[in-house]
Amino acid sequence: MPVGDTSLPPFETVAGLRIGTASAGIKKPGRQDLTIFELASGSRVAGVFTRNAFCAAPVTVAREHLGKAAPRYLLINTGNANAGTGTRGLAACRHTCEALAELTGVEPTQVLPFSTGVIGELLPDEKICDALPQALEQLSERGWAPAANAIMTTDMCPKGASRQVSLPSGAVVNLSGISKGAGMIRPDMATMLGFVAMDAELPQALLDRLLREAVGQSFNRITVDGDTSTNDACMLVATGVGSRVSEDNPEDLAVLQAALNELFVRLATLIVRDGEGATKFIEISVEQAASQQEALDVAYTVAHSPLVKTAFFASDPNWGRLLAAIGRAGVDGLDVEKVTLYLDEVCIAEQGARAESYTEEQGQTVMNREEIRIRIVLDRGGANERVWTTDLSHDYVRINAEYRT
Amino acid sequence: MPVGDTSLPPFETVAGLRIGTASAGIKKPGRQDLTIFELASGSRVAGVFTRNAFCAAPVTVAREHLGKAAPRYLLINTGNANAGTGTRGLAACRHTCEALAELTGVEPTQVLPFSTGVIGELLPDEKICDALPQALEQLSERGWAPAANAIMTTDMCPKGASRQVSLPSGAVVNLSGISKGAGMIRPDMATMLGFVAMDAELPQALLDRLLREAVGQSFNRITVDGDTSTNDACMLVATGVGSRVSEDNPEDLAVLQAALNELFVRLATLIVRDGEGATKFIEISVEQAASQQEALDVAYTVAHSPLVKTAFFASDPNWGRLLAAIGRAGVDGLDVEKVTLYLDEVCIAEQGARAESYTEEQGQTVMNREEIRIRIVLDRGGANERVWTTDLSHDYVRINAEYRT
Repeated sequence: MPVGDTSLPPFETVAGLRIGTASAGIKKPGRQDLTIFELASGSRVAGVFTRNAFCAAPVTVAREHLGKAAPRYLLINTGNANAGTGTRGLAACRHTCEALAELTGVEPTQVLPFSTGVIGELLPDEKICDALPQALEQLSERGWAPAANAIMTTDMCPKGASRQVSLPSGAVVNLSGISKGAGMIRPDMATMLGFVAMDAELPQALLDRLLREAVGQSFNRITVDGDTSTNDACMLVATGVGSRVSEDNPEDLAVLQAALNELFVRLATLIVRDGEGATKFIEISVEQAASQQEALDVAYTVAHSPLVKTAFFASDPNWGRLLAAIGRAGVDGLDVEKVTLYLDEVCIAEQGARAESYTEEQGQTVMNREEIRIRIVLDRGGANERVWTTDLSHDYVRINAEYRT
Repeated sequence: MPVGDTSLPPFETVAGLRIGTASAGIKKPGRQDLTIFELASGSRVAGVFTRNAFCAAPVTVAREHLGKAAPRYLLINTGNANAGTGTRGLAACRHTCEALAELTGVEPTQVLPFSTGVIGELLPDEKICDALPQALEQLSERGWAPAANAIMTTDMCPKGASRQVSLPSGAVVNLSGISKGAGMIRPDMATMLGFVAMDAELPQALLDRLLREAVGQSFNRITVDGDTSTNDACMLVATGVGSRVSEDNPEDLAVLQAALNELFVRLATLIVRDGEGATKFIEISVEQAASQQEALDVAYTVAHSPLVKTAFFASDPNWGRLLAAIGRAGVDGLDVEKVTLYLDEVCIAEQGARAESYTEEQGQTVMNREEIRIRIVLDRGGANERVWTTDLSHDYVRINAEYRT
């Protein structure tokens, strides 16, 4: 079960954007596995993609199309990642773009494809093409919740977030987004899949910048298992239908960025809450590091330590494992005497050893919680970072040993 | 159960070295948990230690003593790591060295201390001091097997290796060694603990070099869970009783180094075979990389991927997870079209996709084996590396969630 409240919000409709879903029978007959986003003419799209060298065919094609034309459609399938499929996978991907373009009277380069599911099997492109008319018939401004369900793979819950933002100038912008992912999660650019849209008009360069900043604080700060997917992609759409936001109005921009950051953090942390086998939601905050990179190195070393993760699963305040992970993070000349370590409000270690005030009962009280914050104060500088992760449970092994078999 | 044959060999006695064990009752009453190595006067010792910044008190003291005096005793306890214990831990460690020095008439700096066990609890130094006479009484040239047992913690099997080497010059050298470790294994300098001795006389600089080379191919090429311990240490002793080996005889040196490398690889891979929860013993060989570092980056990324490890636990030939791990290893400008991937004798992927000749049956046949070699050919240069690791099983989680509770 996901950790904490992961329920879908009521979605604000985003003017200029409609979503339709259908069942193409890609992996399981009858399951909704195909989603189309239709963007109004004049929409702009910013995108970030996985840095995995073995990126999937749709990542290659979407990146290429995004550089060539103004996107009008996003085409998303689950059940098959179309990754590790070589030139035949690329051809299958292009075929689906061409089919949707022909049905809708746009150029194939105006279609951005996304796939998620099993790696290494050929995409059943004919099945997808056959189901396109059905998805187009379903297009609706109210399609967010069905789409949040239709893009799931091993996810236990659909993931969405929505906000209505009133900008200082008086304009109102609706933001809605969905995400998916539960395993192979250590985005190095974006999550498995994330789609966020707003009914506003923005210059392309500004849209790109808003996305990069929001992703940097959210999808690029989560990890479940350290495995960066071949298919990660995150798109931010501005439909152009609505108020204009630009550099000329820095107050509006600041409020919009803050709202986007908040929405992206929610979408990203929902993926952690639904992490494979997760029983705990863990925030790791590293403070007073000498650099951002150093703070991230410590945070991710702790987040990826199987010994730390199993201790959290066991609700065992085994702080020695935390110290050992911090100590091997590669921080140059780390003075362990200066490190202070907290679990929520409890100081557990300082000056290289257990804190004088610490009792096992205090540690146990915190570890029994479902949501826990590890705070590591390095006393080396002014850089702070936080990342989110899960514990490592029996169910993680079960899910990943059983998947595909 | 450990993977493959891990039985102890008959140990060659090493002239000039005696070993005694005793029960100090550190964690469990009655368990042999204290080991003393007595080295002949004139012995030389080379040592490598963990790079974890939160290194244990005995690591700090052993490193310090090794730089000051010629060691005459190694003092090893299990049941308590004396790590994360601050200044009180240092004092307790020094106290045990002083006690042994007084009993034997050497300087405290001639005692090298080693601890392994739970992190963060104070070392019961009085219990250790009380048991020293008992261990000294047991000193014997035949103490290798009892010591291999007495240094175990979560190990399922004692670990040892022994060789008698005939050098080209006619001299005969006896090599014997023991190691321990099963979890928190990703040595960054040495293993949890490894002790190897030979009855030969070598200059210190040469002994240091032999150790560094042997460790580089063995203890520094294994990983169970990616967690570098706070207590890793590996010692190579030359008792000085026996033939002299020096740079003047390069043929002898080459044969001795090769024998040491083989012995160290055995001691290191025994730790992997006994890795916590291991059901598979996996060798990862990366070939034709542009540099050693690149080869190691790929090998360790694959070795640490929870998705790869759970697929091996399930005997599932899920090669997509292998490609995804290779792809995120951070290899600059990796051309996936050139990567070829083998499981034992079976080519499973080439040119960025499944090999034409590959069948699921072939993959399944290999995956059903207990010992498997993953071979990754990058076609980028002349550097090769290999590392050894385990799968990730239900038992790994159980062991680490239950330990200490």
